[in-house]
Amino acid sequence: MFVYERPVRFEDVDAAGIVFFSKFFNYCHEAMEALLAPIDGSYAGLIVDRRLGLPAVRAEAEFATPLRFGDTMRIEVSVARIGKSSSELRYSFTRTKDGAHVATVRHVVVLCRLDTIASVPIPGDVRRVLEKHLVASG
Amino acid sequence: MFVYERPVRFEDVDAAGIVFFSKFFNYCHEAMEALLAPIDGSYAGLIVDRRLGLPAVRAEAEFATPLRFGDTMRIEVSVARIGKSSSELRYSFTRTKDGAHVATVRHVVVLCRLDTIASVPIPGDVRRVLEKHLVASG
Amino acid sequence: MFVYERPVRFEDVDAAGIVFFSKFFNYCHEAMEALLAPIDGSYAGLIVDRRLGLPAVRAEAEFATPLRFGDTMRIEVSVARIGKSSSELRYSFTRTKDGAHVATVRHVVVLCRLDTIASVPIPGDVRRVLEKHLVASG
Amino acid sequence: MFVYERPVRFEDVDAAGIVFFSKFFNYCHEAMEALLAPIDGSYAGLIVDRRLGLPAVRAEAEFATPLRFGDTMRIEVSVARIGKSSSELRYSFTRTKDGAHVATVRHVVVLCRLDTIASVPIPGDVRRVLEKHLVASG
Repeated sequence: MFVYERPVRFEDVDAAGIVFFSKFFNYCHEAMEALLAPIDGSYAGLIVDRRLGLPAVRAEAEFATPLRFGDTMRIEVSVARIGKSSSELRYSFTRTKDGAHVATVRHVVVLCRLDTIASVPIPGDVRRVLEKHLVASG
Repeated sequence: MFVYERPVRFEDVDAAGIVFFSKFFNYCHEAMEALLAPIDGSYAGLIVDRRLGLPAVRAEAEFATPLRFGDTMRIEVSVARIGKSSSELRYSFTRTKDGAHVATVRHVVVLCRLDTIASVPIPGDVRRVLEKHLVASG
Repeated sequence: MFVYERPVRFEDVDAAGIVFFSKFFNYCHEAMEALLAPIDGSYAGLIVDRRLGLPAVRAEAEFATPLRFGDTMRIEVSVARIGKSSSELRYSFTRTKDGAHVATVRHVVVLCRLDTIASVPIPGDVRRVLEKHLVASG
Repeated sequence: MFVYERPVRFEDVDAAGIVFFSKFFNYCHEAMEALLAPIDGSYAGLIVDRRLGLPAVRAEAEFATPLRFGDTMRIEVSVARIGKSSSELRYSFTRTKDGAHVATVRHVVVLCRLDTIASVPIPGDVRRVLEKHLVASG
């Protein structure tokens, strides 16, 4: 399991005064980038130099408690499955100040060449990092 | 069914050159705002004057074809369920130029007072607009 | 002069309840894209097919009246200067409902090859569209 | 002077492959929030609990070198002026890897009650933090 913490930013909050639901997917992506930082050349090198990426083919979220400006979130990331080209990540969000359960996200990504968006097998260095966070799913 | 069309905007595209997956949830929200425009005082009045909102409790997307800058999307919105306080919307995205299937989203919202984020029954004017787009789900 | 109108979107508003100041530059870019729609292949074709772009070298805004969710803005765009590679656009924002002056923006862009971000002369079709909106600046 | 560093995030980059110009103002705001963290209740408390904010009345940027995904930026923040209700901040952006000058921003904010957006004198705790970073401007 990988843990990523960040505050709610000023502009993450919408006209209703709570974090806009689509932002949670941005937070997941940020957490995934942090999880993948140990790969060769980091996540940015994967995209910019190797021209590989991990577009989502599925993203599912349940929202329990809204976050407001001033809150900090703790995101626990785990890898539920690693296939030939695809992998499923899970994210559990809690509010740091009281541990309240905020949201759960499932995120299925496929390793692709960015030029064609054609899937390719997950390279060894990426696979090894994902495997470190592989959790037997319940 | 309600149809909403919009182009991919310049800043919707990420470092991989395709629309970032979280943006699809922004597009859904935009389409929902357009669908709800006929309610008393429009969607903005619901939020600003009546202090009611429709936070998501569930959001699920499947992505089939990436969108790029220059593409236009067609979003077909339907209402799959209307409960006492909650409702489920479905969005089917196609690429306008060739009708390619882009994404499908399920979006469950709960009508809430914004000050407390406590659920309240869906007001009559909102219910009537949702009912116009209610589709027997398959 | 070119006129572009759009509503404040739900997620354009920040934790202070007003449109976040950086969004005005997004609005300007949207208005510029709309102004440039008549060029060969539209603005998207310029970026995607011709691999040319108009990065900003200068952007200056004055803000007079805040916008809130529910407001609609009217943006008057004019071209104050067209040089060999650069051009200066001006944007005047008013609130549609009462004509209140909202903001003024100066935006200097340079036509560049996107691969190198090296400036190149403004192509004829782009120049002709800009010239239509050229206003003797005061 | 206050220093704030952050990477370019995946979704900060636009269809042209460089950081979209409006994002620089988001980065400035983030840096200002970090600079103001030592005030009573932090910047979030100012907004959420004290219902005070610092809307921009002026924002001016010059852009020299584009940033790409994979770059990290160093932002040096200084306070150029503190008036009764307003203050001017300056931001100098460099690219961390080589110190290349990226952008310069001037940002004039006015302390306001958020409910009315009426200016009020800068509270003592905010003033003291701003004064720590006051630099005789050249």
